Amino acid sequence: MRVSEASAMTLVGKLLEGRNVPSRQARQQALVLVEAELKGHPSHGLQRLPRILARIDRGLIDPTTMGSSHWRSGAVLEVDGKKGLGPVVALAALNRMRSEATAAGITLAAIHNSNHLGMLGHYVEQIAERGQIGIALSSSEALVHPYGGTRAVLGTNPIAIAVPTARGSLVLDLATSIVSMGKVHHHAANGIPLQPNWARDASGNPTTDPTLAKNGAIAPFGDAKGYGLGIAIELLVAGLAGSALAPAVLGTLDAEAVCNKGDILIAIDMAAAPDLSERLADYLDFVRSSPAIDPGRPVAVPGDGARKRRECAALKGFDVDDRLWTELNELTAASQAFQQGYMQ
Amino acid sequence: MRVSEASAMTLVGKLLEGRNVPSRQARQQALVLVEAELKGHPSHGLQRLPRILARIDRGLIDPTTMGSSHWRSGAVLEVDGKKGLGPVVALAALNRMRSEATAAGITLAAIHNSNHLGMLGHYVEQIAERGQIGIALSSSEALVHPYGGTRAVLGTNPIAIAVPTARGSLVLDLATSIVSMGKVHHHAANGIPLQPNWARDASGNPTTDPTLAKNGAIAPFGDAKGYGLGIAIELLVAGLAGSALAPAVLGTLDAEAVCNKGDILIAIDMAAAPDLSERLADYLDFVRSSPAIDPGRPVAVPGDGARKRRECAALKGFDVDDRLWTELNELTAASQAFQQGYMQ
Repeated sequence: MRVSEASAMTLVGKLLEGRNVPSRQARQQALVLVEAELKGHPSHGLQRLPRILARIDRGLIDPTTMGSSHWRSGAVLEVDGKKGLGPVVALAALNRMRSEATAAGITLAAIHNSNHLGMLGHYVEQIAERGQIGIALSSSEALVHPYGGTRAVLGTNPIAIAVPTARGSLVLDLATSIVSMGKVHHHAANGIPLQPNWARDASGNPTTDPTLAKNGAIAPFGDAKGYGLGIAIELLVAGLAGSALAPAVLGTLDAEAVCNKGDILIAIDMAAAPDLSERLADYLDFVRSSPAIDPGRPVAVPGDGARKRRECAALKGFDVDDRLWTELNELTAASQAFQQGYMQ
Repeated sequence: MRVSEASAMTLVGKLLEGRNVPSRQARQQALVLVEAELKGHPSHGLQRLPRILARIDRGLIDPTTMGSSHWRSGAVLEVDGKKGLGPVVALAALNRMRSEATAAGITLAAIHNSNHLGMLGHYVEQIAERGQIGIALSSSEALVHPYGGTRAVLGTNPIAIAVPTARGSLVLDLATSIVSMGKVHHHAANGIPLQPNWARDASGNPTTDPTLAKNGAIAPFGDAKGYGLGIAIELLVAGLAGSALAPAVLGTLDAEAVCNKGDILIAIDMAAAPDLSERLADYLDFVRSSPAIDPGRPVAVPGDGARKRRECAALKGFDVDDRLWTELNELTAASQAFQQGYMQ
């Protein structure tokens, strides 16, 4: 069904507050999920909420903490998420980086013991809105096979980069797998075969059957180079956050285990060169207006598509699976009944 | 012909010293070129030397400077290369980062007005040898078309990442183009057609003719994701170094213009988590021993191939094109004659 941004924010906020998430933090978590819907990435949207709620119910997420952090060195903030909500812990770290390490010119937060961040683009966009360059990396469960290999040994290891310009930011946000496991599940639910070379089954054989791929492995994007980037991010995140490596990671896709992946956030001041911000904006326009293979599909810059979808969805709302929306509304009713019972 | 590491180092060193490059700096530049040969990347090896020498002769490279630098902020070193040799300027920056910003935990050098670095892997390897994580980015002339586009508007924008472990480092070093322009030139010189989807001609049409591709555009690796990474690096480098964007970049492939691309070097301290270094090494071994598609070609980790080739070439030498080796030896003779004339 078609849902408005406001009604989604209200529903998610209510569900989180019903589980003792303070209202400001509930809004931070809600925004990450609803933004993903508005930008056309439902795999990182509302469908993740029931798991978040279950994780709170089971004590795998602490609904109230913002994590604790200390400066491991002059420009590196070490963050223990204390099992907090991913967005809440990350945004608290970004605030501390912004207010306390301004003289360094570059700051890094290395986060462990925190929950799923949702779309990484959300965080680097916020850094870019301050006028800084933002980079974010994250690790995950083993879902991706190496180039030349057949078994899932790597995380989907996303990277996001935002660079501000005089007219909007470039916002890159990509997983180093060729598709997301969310998309594989979506294909499975709808009986759509996968493209060849997207995945392998549990025995390591190539498959286009999404049901078999769910227990197998997804390919890295871009063959050897994409694999190389993915494994470098695997080591970067663990090497900086001290977090688990993919085969030992739990807690981003289940409601049974404490989450032990890592997240890295980096904020860097831009150079003070004259007209730099204009030059970057002009360059992006030059790329956009360069000749396209299909004149009906002009060249885009990372972030353009999400920005357009977001603008459209802010006006017209976005589609949510009926069953999911019903499930969330029933959870709200249950939560209100629970609260009323608690208050009697 | 087959050449030994020692004879190549001697020849390159002699040629550079013959042009007033101080011996320590000549060795730094020589090592970058010879290491590329030893690692099996001749596109970044000796074939670049005649251009470097011509650039010195024409005043486009200052053979004596190490550049000048100042701390733009607590952890960001701004480097004006003063038209120096790329490796000399970069290694001087790394030394300053190492000795003066140790308390920050993360340091970044933003370099402009310097010459071609050669293989980026060389620099991140040196950072990893100190026990830190190294990241390097560089920009270049416009050689790559965007995803969905047909014209060269992006640099090949390489990225290198090294992460030290208890048993050797992971060393990733890749251009964000699907192949290097050096490889296109190699195919052209040897009349070997390109693979489909590698390149477009000057009119923007797909071509497998390497001669036509030389004046056209190379594809980004990994479709939209690789393009996204490439354009993000384009903006990162210019945004941090204040350097030119691809369409305006000159001086890495010619002997006519001052070089105006940018380079970024980042060094980050590892986390102090117990057994981290062992865990990273064990993980890489786990990936290497995971099942391979072709049991005759085991899964590799970035850096494995280059390390093996280097070890082999250190014993057995490496092959250099006869014509190139003759050209370099003739340049040595000319340079000695020039020096003798000069000293009379």
